Amino acid sequence: MSRFAPRPEPPYYAVIFTSQRTEGDLGYGDAAERMFELATTQPGYLGAESSRDASGLGITVSYWRSLDDVAAWRRNADHTLARNSARTTWYAHYELRIAKVERAYGWDRDGGTAPGDGGA
Amino acid sequence: MSRFAPRPEPPYYAVIFTSQRTEGDLGYGDAAERMFELATTQPGYLGAESSRDASGLGITVSYWRSLDDVAAWRRNADHTLARNSARTTWYAHYELRIAKVERAYGWDRDGGTAPGDGGA
Repeated sequence: MSRFAPRPEPPYYAVIFTSQRTEGDLGYGDAAERMFELATTQPGYLGAESSRDASGLGITVSYWRSLDDVAAWRRNADHTLARNSARTTWYAHYELRIAKVERAYGWDRDGGTAPGDGGA
Repeated sequence: MSRFAPRPEPPYYAVIFTSQRTEGDLGYGDAAERMFELATTQPGYLGAESSRDASGLGITVSYWRSLDDVAAWRRNADHTLARNSARTTWYAHYELRIAKVERAYGWDRDGGTAPGDGGA
């Protein structure tokens, strides 16, 4: 499975979640996997990309069709995370930004300029 | 130095760059550091967050005051990267998205709800 999200035609929405994990797993791995699977079943879900480095600093960007879809997902996620006391155990700090994607480009070594690059 | 970007009042712009590195450094480490330092001196630069995991999948999000600032930075970055043949040596694949940040929240373990969270 590709670790890159698809590239639908803008506009769409990005939820940028940057976080510093605390030490130890504390159930995070399993819960993160469940949250990811839950996201993929939500209305308006377009894809996600995620990376976490050895220091525990991670960025996850999920993509959504509309702001309403983002709001519905956040309600679901908050509900699920609240049950797990996620904020107080898993994270030392996080930043969450909601942004409207206006332009998107891509490039692949095997394919050169990718579809959606506007032919530029 | 914090690995989190500041949280200015929206709206502002995010450049979301997700990339898969090729094997080997090939001068990437030094160039990435220079690119980061160059970014911090550009007009409209607000901050950046970056993570790359052990598989070489990385996400860097840089934040900018305006679309004009983003465009000027991209011209500078393209110019610098072209000199280094960056695309064809450092990356197997990348996606670049330009998005307008409409809302931003944050949380810190030591401080609870962070400034800019709207007191919600």
